[in-house]
Amino acid sequence: MSDYLSMSKEEQLEEFKAVRAEYEKLRLMHLSLDMSRGKPGFDNMDLSEEMFDLVGNDTGFKNISGIDCRNYGGLDGLAELKTLFGEILDISPDQIIVGGNSSLNMMFDTIAQAMTHGMGGEPWAKQGEIKFICPAPGYDRHFAITEYFGFKLLTVKINSDGPDMDAVEELVKDPSVKGIWCVPKYSNPEGVTYSDDVVRRMAALKPAAGDFRIFWDNAYAVHDLYDEGDKLLNIYDECVKAGNPDLPLIFTSTSKITFPGAGVAAQAASPNNVAMLKGRMKYQTIGPDKLNQLRHARMFKTADDVRAHMKKHAGVLRPKFECVLAELENELGGKGIAKWTNPKGGYFISLNVLPGCAKRTVQLCANAGMILTPAGATFPYGKDPEDENIRIAPSYPSVEEIEKASKVLCVAVKYAVLEKLTGYKKKA
Amino acid sequence: MSDYLSMSKEEQLEEFKAVRAEYEKLRLMHLSLDMSRGKPGFDNMDLSEEMFDLVGNDTGFKNISGIDCRNYGGLDGLAELKTLFGEILDISPDQIIVGGNSSLNMMFDTIAQAMTHGMGGEPWAKQGEIKFICPAPGYDRHFAITEYFGFKLLTVKINSDGPDMDAVEELVKDPSVKGIWCVPKYSNPEGVTYSDDVVRRMAALKPAAGDFRIFWDNAYAVHDLYDEGDKLLNIYDECVKAGNPDLPLIFTSTSKITFPGAGVAAQAASPNNVAMLKGRMKYQTIGPDKLNQLRHARMFKTADDVRAHMKKHAGVLRPKFECVLAELENELGGKGIAKWTNPKGGYFISLNVLPGCAKRTVQLCANAGMILTPAGATFPYGKDPEDENIRIAPSYPSVEEIEKASKVLCVAVKYAVLEKLTGYKKKA
Repeated sequence: MSDYLSMSKEEQLEEFKAVRAEYEKLRLMHLSLDMSRGKPGFDNMDLSEEMFDLVGNDTGFKNISGIDCRNYGGLDGLAELKTLFGEILDISPDQIIVGGNSSLNMMFDTIAQAMTHGMGGEPWAKQGEIKFICPAPGYDRHFAITEYFGFKLLTVKINSDGPDMDAVEELVKDPSVKGIWCVPKYSNPEGVTYSDDVVRRMAALKPAAGDFRIFWDNAYAVHDLYDEGDKLLNIYDECVKAGNPDLPLIFTSTSKITFPGAGVAAQAASPNNVAMLKGRMKYQTIGPDKLNQLRHARMFKTADDVRAHMKKHAGVLRPKFECVLAELENELGGKGIAKWTNPKGGYFISLNVLPGCAKRTVQLCANAGMILTPAGATFPYGKDPEDENIRIAPSYPSVEEIEKASKVLCVAVKYAVLEKLTGYKKKA
Repeated sequence: MSDYLSMSKEEQLEEFKAVRAEYEKLRLMHLSLDMSRGKPGFDNMDLSEEMFDLVGNDTGFKNISGIDCRNYGGLDGLAELKTLFGEILDISPDQIIVGGNSSLNMMFDTIAQAMTHGMGGEPWAKQGEIKFICPAPGYDRHFAITEYFGFKLLTVKINSDGPDMDAVEELVKDPSVKGIWCVPKYSNPEGVTYSDDVVRRMAALKPAAGDFRIFWDNAYAVHDLYDEGDKLLNIYDECVKAGNPDLPLIFTSTSKITFPGAGVAAQAASPNNVAMLKGRMKYQTIGPDKLNQLRHARMFKTADDVRAHMKKHAGVLRPKFECVLAELENELGGKGIAKWTNPKGGYFISLNVLPGCAKRTVQLCANAGMILTPAGATFPYGKDPEDENIRIAPSYPSVEEIEKASKVLCVAVKYAVLEKLTGYKKKA
């Protein structure tokens, strides 16, 4: 387990020869592995099998309010789901909007609304250059939405306790800065949960733009891997205390609780913001799919039901995460060429390799039949300034596949690093 | 059955006295009836009861392409539904996007996209004053979307064969005119199906604006009330023939085939337009609810399955329509104070009363416990210039309720008209 960086050139070349041979062996196995996206596995989805029997001809189609969920109507969702998401997010049910199958869609639509109709001020599209703060590494699809709408993306470092708040506080002095993307619990991909101090500083921001909003994507609100999960301070309460009730727009979903493609998404905010959002929604739709909402309402009567269900998910996911982490430790530990996160929840492990080696590692993995998220994807514009970050999504493959995939990954990291260190030229 | 308009003032006052007494009797029945929206009844929705048993643990979750429909992915919908909607709309499956539960949402999002990213040209929001053609009477929610986005709404008369094409051809010479709303088959509320000539003239339009689009909401594509339904010419084929493939954006859904709140919506267009729409969608969502799509795919293997299903719907709806029509004929026939449509499909009967009497009729109905669509709603800005059009939606109540509701409606029409003719002042 010697440190590659303190090896002599000769030792490095020797080691590289061995690594190349190992890589060649793996490549010839013609593997087909995918750790690119945070997709639940079939073993996760099977946990919600009872969902399919909860709404049907025997059980009826009415919710507690007596609404026939097959028909039109109910713009902001079923009462029981407002209560449930209210419990999960610790916010009043009347400040919750329950939607369709995608919280990403809700975020997109919220920004689209701000572009054409503003967020209490002038339409963002009419304000000239506009900017958005992107703590990075972060979620590529967040950054992509704001890039699509023409924002200048401002990168802020994410530390072990959340975004660099000194930088954020400085940036919001610019009135063209309109928002910040946050995954405050088990962040994608770092697995970081924002500290109480970071949440309080976020809530106390005094942005120059009155129409600045915190996009608080609490995607992993109940997604602990261990009994002892991280605790996240309630952003809405803190914002109210700080006199900023309209600052946060909170999102969550059951995509990784029930079904990724057929879950239920929700959005929470101040009464002002909720009224503004509904002001768009009443033109946009006659209402969400209430039958799917009803399935969820009947499956989860309380947030405790959800938490009990999440323990089953943890049972499926934990061995997958631990398999990757063990392999990383075994193969890369002590070599001075990589660092990785050890998350207590969420869907990702973030791996930082020697600067300049991430793209090459991902390419080497692909050549050996293993797909990773493109290097750089976790940064605004898809460009990692240090070319060092790799996002690992261990949820989808089986443990057996993950063992092989982790092996490929570690060999690829060593290959890329040694190639760089030795100045080796031949293309693999 | 004497014509009110040729009565002497004395005869009118006599008749009015009788009508007022009749109205009073109805009012004291404290009815609670609703013919305001085109909502299917529970008897319609019950026809799709088998849907709930088609996707579950016994049947599996994979579609014909082997996709696990529970998981993420599949931006533009399941292959079998593209084929099905392709059959219904007579357009190639690869030009179909299958979405969520609401075609209205697809229309809204398409216009939102054009506002911020254009329709092949400059963003509509950056083009100064923009206008949209609204054939009227028409669908209030269409008009509302364009009003929300700040269009100037241009009213065009709808004749028995479709919109007044002379007027449309004149209006599109203005480059700030960006589109037209069309419900080409069994139009809402007139029940008009566009003639071949109108479709061909629509397809051959040469708008000054290169980014002009026909929003072709084929909501009632298979919604015949009788065996012999209206035939609608294929707008896409005609546009291709006319050298205008990018002109139409076609929409439909199963909202009134399966479940209003939990159906599946689809959008069809030229390859250019489809690519443009997907260019937005890939940022907006990870994909639609494929489990609900799978339910639909398993229920309807072919368009013929859909047509057979629609015959059952017709069996439920026909008596309701005929009940209203019989009552209108009985009570208002020959009186010279009202005209109404006799649709062969769709969801509405359109009633035109003596100019200046629509609002008052709707108010009188409300006072007697019967809710109608607000008078004027079928016109841009909710303003019927003649105050004469009333939209009747007979689908939701039972036949028994419809009998009572039609009675109330006819008495209210007579009341409003006689009140006007006699100059009677007392408030009902």
